[in-house]
Order: sequence, then C-alpha cells, then structure tokens
Amino acid sequence: MSYQEEMRIKTIRHGDIHDITDQVSAIVARSGVKTGMVNVFNIGSTAAIGTIEFEPGLQMDISEILDQLIPPGTHYRHEQSWHDGNGHSHLQATIMGPSLTVPIMEGKLVLGTWQQIFHLECDNKPHSRRIIVTVQ
Amino acid sequence: MSYQEEMRIKTIRHGDIHDITDQVSAIVARSGVKTGMVNVFNIGSTAAIGTIEFEPGLQMDISEILDQLIPPGTHYRHEQSWHDGNGHSHLQATIMGPSLTVPIMEGKLVLGTWQQIFHLECDNKPHSRRIIVTVQ
Amino acid sequence: MSYQEEMRIKTIRHGDIHDITDQVSAIVARSGVKTGMVNVFNIGSTAAIGTIEFEPGLQMDISEILDQLIPPGTHYRHEQSWHDGNGHSHLQATIMGPSLTVPIMEGKLVLGTWQQIFHLECDNKPHSRRIIVTVQ
Repeated sequence: MSYQEEMRIKTIRHGDIHDITDQVSAIVARSGVKTGMVNVFNIGSTAAIGTIEFEPGLQMDISEILDQLIPPGTHYRHEQSWHDGNGHSHLQATIMGPSLTVPIMEGKLVLGTWQQIFHLECDNKPHSRRIIVTVQ
Repeated sequence: MSYQEEMRIKTIRHGDIHDITDQVSAIVARSGVKTGMVNVFNIGSTAAIGTIEFEPGLQMDISEILDQLIPPGTHYRHEQSWHDGNGHSHLQATIMGPSLTVPIMEGKLVLGTWQQIFHLECDNKPHSRRIIVTVQ
Repeated sequence: MSYQEEMRIKTIRHGDIHDITDQVSAIVARSGVKTGMVNVFNIGSTAAIGTIEFEPGLQMDISEILDQLIPPGTHYRHEQSWHDGNGHSHLQATIMGPSLTVPIMEGKLVLGTWQQIFHLECDNKPHSRRIIVTVQ
C-alpha cells in the first residue's frame, strides 16, 4: 500500500536551495502508484521543504526574506543556552515547515509548470540531509 | 483506494480569498471514505491553501499582514529578471504553502466550527485556479 | 486501512507549547502500521502544529518571534468586529498551519533526534484542544 524511499542531499551553507522535483518524480514512478499522494519530509529541525518557481532570483529571494523577517542574532533564547549561532535557523525551518504533500494523478506528480519542490538549508553549517519520500 | 477530483475557482485580484470548505466536503462525500484524510493542493506557485475563521475581518487581515511582512517591491531578485511585479506573490505563497491535509471522521471533514478551508490568491492578476482534492 | 484517535491537551495561555511526540508515537504503535504516514491536525483556528527542537529556549523563541512579526493589536479588522483581542492569534495560527504529516518507517515515526512534534496555543485564553491523529 505504501512505498517509501530515502533520498540524501548535501548542503553547503545557510540558504542553500535544491530542486528535488526530479528525484521525487522518479520515486513516484518506481512506486507504481497511479492516483494518490506523496509526502516529502526533511529529517531534522533546521531545514524546510516547500514549492517555489525554481528560478535563480527566487532561489535567493526566499532565504533573503526569511533572514529579513527572522534575522541571525544573539537575542534568541536558544542562543543564550547553546551559542551555536543558529537560533534563526530553527525558527525559519519551523515556520516554513519540514514537509509537503503533493497529489499524484495518472502516475505523475501534479505540479504547475513553474512550480518545483525545493529543499532549503536553514542551518549555518553543511549537512548531509535525509529526506523521506512516502507514496500512497 | 484513492479518490481524486479537480475543482476550479476564478480569482480576480491579489488578496482574493475563497472559502472552499463546501466544495471539499462534497468531494469527501462522493469519495465514500469514512475514516481517512483529504489533501487539498493548489497547482501553481502564487496561491496558497490553509485554514482560517472565514469572517470578513480576517479575510482582509490575512492578505494585509502578508503584504506588510513581504511587501510588493522591485528589490526582489525575481523582479530584476522578470519585471512582472509579483516577487512578493511568489514569496507569500511559498511561505504559506500550497496545500493542506485534513482528517475525515465518520465520512465528514474534521474542522472547528469557526475553521474553514481557504484559497488565497497571492498573484497580482486574475487566475483560473486548479485545485486537486485527493481523498484516502 | 486508516486508524484514527483523538487526543486532548489543556493549554493555559498564549504561547503555551506542548511536546506531543510521545502521544503521537503511541498512537502510531497502536495502529499497527509499519510503513506509511501520520497526520496530526488541530481542530480550531487559533492553534498550530509543527516540528521544532523542543528545548526551553526555542519553546519561548517561537511564540516571541510570532508576536514580533504579527503583534497583538487593535488594528486588525477582526478586532474591529469582534473585540476579543485575538486577531494576531488567528493570523499566527493560519500562517503556521493547523497540521503536519510525518512518515512512518518500521512502525515508528521518522524524526530527527532533536526534532519533536509540538502544539502551540496562539489564542489569548485557555483551551481544551482536540487533536486528530490519522495513520495510514
């Protein structure tokens, strides 16, 4: 009934953004599911999953607007305990959310032409990120 | 196992908000599913789906607060490439998210009395929006 | 196919945050589902569900950053009709979102070590909150 795969991506810095649409599409194809939905979930509390028009301008705009709304700083209570400089990373990722659910129609992801699935690194250091893709 | 319908709504301007609860409820009823969940997904990168108390004040407040946090402007990198005046539309829609998953109990959507499912147009021009509703 | 339980939590004030990971895990265990997903949904329009590193600093930071971005105030149109002082509560909850979907692998929730499922009270009064957990 449910088909699941783990995919990994390497991120190098805060604001690093990846288009993971093709990898999710390939998993949907391997699942054999024709009508249903797929959940894409980032393991960890400092990265986000969502949809965006994946063009070079917006790839930078999304992280910049998050940094403007939730700037780096030592005033977060998280910083006062942990001193790892990523209080804003946690808050950005929590507000964006770690997951996305997309419908599947005729065996394919349903997305707009200018709508891609992205992974956004909000942390201030590189990560090897595990993303769980579950198809039903 | 999965039941899917597409619904359409016409939007006329930035901030246009629709209560789509009744249409989603009708699709859940036609699906015959008694216990499960329904995913509601907007195709495209400049509109959002969520829940809100759908009263006239909040119908305007939600778009106004988004415009205050992520205002229209020519400073977005998206604007510098595309000049279509909707950089803020993309960012608002990405942060709000294109989809929502709601539980189904005894054949009905589980929502609070003052909690409705909305579609919010974030773009700066009218659209005929396609929304995919998937019931499991 | 679908297993569903309702859980309740009592909240006492705006910004009250609960770690509900253990309760959701127990429901997943009772469902018997080995591979799939679980949806966690707050009934009502003034509370939110998400993931966060549930440490004391961030437990306060999340509500503080929401209050900074979407402050209490009488300027919301919702206030002008209802005068109940919770316009910001509605907008915070709508932007955060009422639900979360998490994958299940080998019968367990897939979460990072420092990633917990939280319920955040955004309203300005206590509530007995109903949360619907649906496993597939």
